[in-house]
Amino acid sequence: MTPLIPFHFKGEYALKTVIRDGLIVTQNESREVLRGDVLVDDGVISHVGEAKGDVDQEVDAGGCVVMPGLINCHTHVAMAVMRGMADDLGLGPFLERTFAVDARRKAKDIEAGALLGCAEMARSGTTSFLDLYYSEDIIARSVEKAGLRAYLGWAVLDEELTTQKGRPVDNCARFIEQFGNHPLITPVVAPQGVYACSDETLMAARELARTKGTFCHYHLSETRHEVYEYKKSRGRRPVEHLAHIGFLSGGDVAAHCVWLTLNEVRDLARHGVSAVHCPTSNMKLAGGGVSPLPEMFENDATVCLGTDGCSSNNSLDMFLEMKFAALLQKSSRWDASVLPAQKALDLATIDAARSLGANERIGSIEPGKRADIVIIDCQHPAMAPTTADNIVANLVYASPSKAVRDTMVDGKFVVRDGRFTRADEHKVAAEAVACAQELLSG
Amino acid sequence: MTPLIPFHFKGEYALKTVIRDGLIVTQNESREVLRGDVLVDDGVISHVGEAKGDVDQEVDAGGCVVMPGLINCHTHVAMAVMRGMADDLGLGPFLERTFAVDARRKAKDIEAGALLGCAEMARSGTTSFLDLYYSEDIIARSVEKAGLRAYLGWAVLDEELTTQKGRPVDNCARFIEQFGNHPLITPVVAPQGVYACSDETLMAARELARTKGTFCHYHLSETRHEVYEYKKSRGRRPVEHLAHIGFLSGGDVAAHCVWLTLNEVRDLARHGVSAVHCPTSNMKLAGGGVSPLPEMFENDATVCLGTDGCSSNNSLDMFLEMKFAALLQKSSRWDASVLPAQKALDLATIDAARSLGANERIGSIEPGKRADIVIIDCQHPAMAPTTADNIVANLVYASPSKAVRDTMVDGKFVVRDGRFTRADEHKVAAEAVACAQELLSG
Repeated sequence: MTPLIPFHFKGEYALKTVIRDGLIVTQNESREVLRGDVLVDDGVISHVGEAKGDVDQEVDAGGCVVMPGLINCHTHVAMAVMRGMADDLGLGPFLERTFAVDARRKAKDIEAGALLGCAEMARSGTTSFLDLYYSEDIIARSVEKAGLRAYLGWAVLDEELTTQKGRPVDNCARFIEQFGNHPLITPVVAPQGVYACSDETLMAARELARTKGTFCHYHLSETRHEVYEYKKSRGRRPVEHLAHIGFLSGGDVAAHCVWLTLNEVRDLARHGVSAVHCPTSNMKLAGGGVSPLPEMFENDATVCLGTDGCSSNNSLDMFLEMKFAALLQKSSRWDASVLPAQKALDLATIDAARSLGANERIGSIEPGKRADIVIIDCQHPAMAPTTADNIVANLVYASPSKAVRDTMVDGKFVVRDGRFTRADEHKVAAEAVACAQELLSG
Repeated sequence: MTPLIPFHFKGEYALKTVIRDGLIVTQNESREVLRGDVLVDDGVISHVGEAKGDVDQEVDAGGCVVMPGLINCHTHVAMAVMRGMADDLGLGPFLERTFAVDARRKAKDIEAGALLGCAEMARSGTTSFLDLYYSEDIIARSVEKAGLRAYLGWAVLDEELTTQKGRPVDNCARFIEQFGNHPLITPVVAPQGVYACSDETLMAARELARTKGTFCHYHLSETRHEVYEYKKSRGRRPVEHLAHIGFLSGGDVAAHCVWLTLNEVRDLARHGVSAVHCPTSNMKLAGGGVSPLPEMFENDATVCLGTDGCSSNNSLDMFLEMKFAALLQKSSRWDASVLPAQKALDLATIDAARSLGANERIGSIEPGKRADIVIIDCQHPAMAPTTADNIVANLVYASPSKAVRDTMVDGKFVVRDGRFTRADEHKVAAEAVACAQELLSG
């Protein structure tokens, strides 16, 4: 259980920071919006309101909104380097194209892609994310460099379908051993999806998650085609099958969940499986249909949002994901009141934290929570006028990512004055271009 | 025909500027992407390629994309000050709420809102827009201050339905007299829509446009409800009626065009009326259905994009509008190949210029065109990796507005290094907040 990379956070944590005079969107139980200060002590929010006494660091948030960091519940961060490589294609040809490029990837491409993706997320106000990929140990290096909070799901699938060396479930187990006690990284077991996992693979993943005290993250019922083919060959729909073999388990997080019957929605809710809605990716890949969010809400399912990978979005911007989510639901239901701004913001903050089993630690600005905080410049022309009355609407509909000034993770700034502090942005971009050119010419 | 506000551009134009070493997305006839320089002389693009010789100003665009400024073909710019005041409402309650606030607006609110909207557009790479509102003479002041290119449509509707003093068509005529010879402002006649204009009002607007050599801009068939009610009370659908009374005319620009039959699409195309697709506003107001773009393309209609007003979007970001347009079409047709990236970019540049009858002057980077140019930092983490292969996809899908570095209109920078150069952004925001608070308390 010794971590691969030494933890160098100790000491830096002792910093006491006050964020002064912001409009604080707390996302607490009563969804209060307050004007005041947020005191951060040793990585933890210690006070919200008027902060007195000595501090090490004062940050002026006058004219700004102070809000909890956004949580991206489904992505493939290392694919950032493949942005714009497979567009205007449906899921089938899209996967063919991306798998072909993916098969040529080396460790350095994965590391560079993950750092680029982390930089993009930090710059657009995302502080935590849930990833699904192979080589998560390499991705973890970039996550540590970037200083984000991450739930890293190692892809588990049938051995004959993967380029991974050795049994994927053993690789995943090794990854959990390495990163099991990390302050910012939580290893997750990620069975790819029913189309790539035999029942034995699925249940081995389930067992690994159970023994290691983590959860499973998987793709589920993303397109009409996939569900139709599965039902035709297996006789059951994917969720029906997962229920039948005893795979469904509380705390799991299922990505997409577009093509579900009402019975399947109820099955997921009853078992405590969260659904990650990925509206941008779903729309772009045109898999057909729209995820049934109103029915999920009616059945008390936990719902959150994800960007999916950069190659099918082609952005990791969770502010945009909120806007796409709200507008796609309204548009498809012919009802402008469906998924109002406050609920969209919940999906990307406190509900997302609940999906990850982390709502005691992150997802809102409340004393005792880890200090994952975003500061947005509301004097940016895209955000004005912002008042306590329209702040939630502006966060969801006005596309504030361009106005993100500072991003703090676990008490430390990873973005300050609109710049990523953990690496030279130009170098990150230049490496991404070099990798992309090599991958495309390979 | 004396302009209300003196033209103070003369002299500044003499500046010779070279934009060096960018990746130039020309949007010329063959949609070439070139690496090289753009030479701007006296407000006009004089050379694209390698530029030699003395210049007054060198702008380094290494690592950047150089592209034509985006053209927003339907907005109500002065409503920027009403951002976030009427959300999660359908068109009916939305209009009730916005009209109530709108009725309290004074000249200073309109001026402040228009300046804010212009600043937002400039910062997000929009160089030209087509507006529909009253008091366009006041809006023109802010447009001049902001230095944008604008087509300003004065709202013409039945006298008993408006807060305008005097006959709207006479007010519009007076506005055309004032601004008929302006280098950057083109006055337009804007009959509000069939639901607010008698046949007499419509034909008076038509006649005014004809005699003054300009075009008409109007709302058309935005929601199912509106079209259904119109057909029930009048016996014809809106386009059928406009064709019947002889209103349809080449060069006109109709906003929304969602609820059209195939015959109506053909009618518009045959008459040379352009359709402005406003996907974000349509989705947010949930009027039902999706504008039939593929059928418009099949029938050779000219199509462009608009953000609509800030209160129904709530953003004036044309990069986002391209993404919403492409994804909404793909998603609603279950076909990822519908409205590919290149076509989406066309809709916001050269096709938009054609809609405005200005494709000889703007919409692409070609010698002889006015210098409306945007420079985007492709080393921004949201834009990397950008190469000649994926640049068009990145412009449409990666949400580059956050990476807009410089915006030039008619040869002059209105945004430089990410800052609006024409007014203090914090003052613009503070005025917007003051107006919003007064309007809401009034």
